[in-house]
Amino acid sequence: MGKSRLEAFSDGVLAIIITIMVLEMKVPHGIGVDALSPLIPVLLSYVLSFVYLGIYWNNHHHMLHASQKVTGSMLWANLHLLFWLSLFPFATGWMGENHFAATTMALYGVVLFMAAIAYLILQQTIISSQGRDSLLKAAVGRDWKGRFSPVLYAFAIAASFLSPWIAGGIYVAVALMWLVPDRRITNVLVSKET
Amino acid sequence: MGKSRLEAFSDGVLAIIITIMVLEMKVPHGIGVDALSPLIPVLLSYVLSFVYLGIYWNNHHHMLHASQKVTGSMLWANLHLLFWLSLFPFATGWMGENHFAATTMALYGVVLFMAAIAYLILQQTIISSQGRDSLLKAAVGRDWKGRFSPVLYAFAIAASFLSPWIAGGIYVAVALMWLVPDRRITNVLVSKET
Amino acid sequence: MGKSRLEAFSDGVLAIIITIMVLEMKVPHGIGVDALSPLIPVLLSYVLSFVYLGIYWNNHHHMLHASQKVTGSMLWANLHLLFWLSLFPFATGWMGENHFAATTMALYGVVLFMAAIAYLILQQTIISSQGRDSLLKAAVGRDWKGRFSPVLYAFAIAASFLSPWIAGGIYVAVALMWLVPDRRITNVLVSKET
Amino acid sequence: MGKSRLEAFSDGVLAIIITIMVLEMKVPHGIGVDALSPLIPVLLSYVLSFVYLGIYWNNHHHMLHASQKVTGSMLWANLHLLFWLSLFPFATGWMGENHFAATTMALYGVVLFMAAIAYLILQQTIISSQGRDSLLKAAVGRDWKGRFSPVLYAFAIAASFLSPWIAGGIYVAVALMWLVPDRRITNVLVSKET
Repeated sequence: MGKSRLEAFSDGVLAIIITIMVLEMKVPHGIGVDALSPLIPVLLSYVLSFVYLGIYWNNHHHMLHASQKVTGSMLWANLHLLFWLSLFPFATGWMGENHFAATTMALYGVVLFMAAIAYLILQQTIISSQGRDSLLKAAVGRDWKGRFSPVLYAFAIAASFLSPWIAGGIYVAVALMWLVPDRRITNVLVSKET
Repeated sequence: MGKSRLEAFSDGVLAIIITIMVLEMKVPHGIGVDALSPLIPVLLSYVLSFVYLGIYWNNHHHMLHASQKVTGSMLWANLHLLFWLSLFPFATGWMGENHFAATTMALYGVVLFMAAIAYLILQQTIISSQGRDSLLKAAVGRDWKGRFSPVLYAFAIAASFLSPWIAGGIYVAVALMWLVPDRRITNVLVSKET
Repeated sequence: MGKSRLEAFSDGVLAIIITIMVLEMKVPHGIGVDALSPLIPVLLSYVLSFVYLGIYWNNHHHMLHASQKVTGSMLWANLHLLFWLSLFPFATGWMGENHFAATTMALYGVVLFMAAIAYLILQQTIISSQGRDSLLKAAVGRDWKGRFSPVLYAFAIAASFLSPWIAGGIYVAVALMWLVPDRRITNVLVSKET
Repeated sequence: MGKSRLEAFSDGVLAIIITIMVLEMKVPHGIGVDALSPLIPVLLSYVLSFVYLGIYWNNHHHMLHASQKVTGSMLWANLHLLFWLSLFPFATGWMGENHFAATTMALYGVVLFMAAIAYLILQQTIISSQGRDSLLKAAVGRDWKGRFSPVLYAFAIAASFLSPWIAGGIYVAVALMWLVPDRRITNVLVSKET
């Protein structure tokens, strides 16, 4: 079973998720600049989620590039990841419309947490399906970024009830940490080819 | 005529159906945790439909993999299947918003039933277009899962007026029954290659 | 310039158009079967448009299959066709929600008419870009279906003010006339390959 | 890393953006022709944005065709461009619904401006990643169109507060200027192949 259709379907779902989020920015009825000001938190939360989904697309891209075959459990682990990513528009919209209120920040953290766990599961599923000398396993190594992120999200969920700003700061920091493309996988791939 | 464009179009439609379902989860105006509680049935019905569409995508993937050429009747049998699948967001939204009321459960069953019949028609169309020793025919065999599912859906439609819980139980049970990827097709493909 | 990306983009746009039409079927608030009855015209108009878009996708598929290269004017003639097709959800929703009122039937006819003209323009653009012995030109021949359809749509637009039923009958009849896949193109392609 | 998945994802996002814009044309409740008249500015702004997104898709197509490899920074420069393009539906809807009021025209100009800058950044990222004798660099040359457009948009933003008609005229003029496909890239590609 080829991986091209798995990539195409994932690309399709990710492209739609990233795009329908913008539908939460409802066109205001007024025409003054002040009609736009309530949309600023909605725009900010959209930017954050756009970056997160961009990171997921990017890393998903690398991860599948490093895997040679596709198994039934990979298909389902992938759908499981897409499920949690599909809740981004909802969590983003709720957070943006309510100006980053505590509960909305916590829910956003829950979605981030579950997506991160789903990503780890997919990664593990791919590694175990590729056999002993998996290219991806070598590339990922100890994967401190992948394992550390859910811990930070869990901390942010708790912190959001203290101050939503701490949670927001953590979400932005983790996004920045991931923005650097996963050079580990690229490096191993390049060195294998040499 | 290549089957890649048929796959790409089906993937696109399925990716959109699976994603726009989440738009039925309207962002609530309140910020308390209690603002989320009316959304729980909507989320549950979304999860069920997400799994069903995942199953269809998965099996569609296998089925086309086992077919060598694409005919005009296959294109239309495929569009017919996509039509019934496109009614999932509507049926899911109605069921979720009305907390699994009897009529909504019955309608959901009707959509499941029609999609299952459309799937059988597509399968039959592919088999008859592939000629006598169709790979798919050998793979599918007697196909008790495909033939038994519509019977169960029909039973659930009737049962939903007795108790929506029976219908719901059947929908979940059939989904679990299908969650196992269709090893028959994979097996035959593998044995043919050997 | 490869035609795969043109096909992929067209498939994407058509998949989205065909799917977002279903969003016009708003989830009703009531739970009785009678809550569904106002949706019957919406569903009927959705079925009609689904079939029309299926026909366009199908014929678009054949047409590009018979063309060897992609030019700048083809890209724009294709976008022009996609533009008119993108108005289907609007025209369909208006027609369905207003129970096939005269003006809505006329507007639906206008969209059908413009899409048919755009299709002819795209076909002509491809033929002239392929040079003297264009495969598509031979395949299309005198193309009475393509040329006759706009005439019928124009007649239906006028007739819709007399009786919306005449217009509706024509729309259904033209769709049925096209449902037969364009065997001419297939035939010529097959005979060329022999 | 192959560029096919980058193209596929961009095509997907562009296809969705271009299509969901039409959702801003809300189906009117009345059935008279006069029920359509408030939609005329919405339709006009949709046409303009459809053309702009068509131009972006077209040029994006050419640009990636002229680039040989894909780097991490290209992926992010591409996502940055897609982000600004994803704001088209919002800006278009606001402009159309408010009959081209000054502030809405200015915001549309801001989105056009930022997208144009993002396009230049992506172009520069590709050129610097392709090395010294980049095909794209030769093709683009001095790129007066790409550099001149943001200047015109900036002028239009300021002018929209004087008269929205000036801004609108500039937006239409720039679109017409770009409608001509970028023959420079095609020419260089063709001459290289010869």
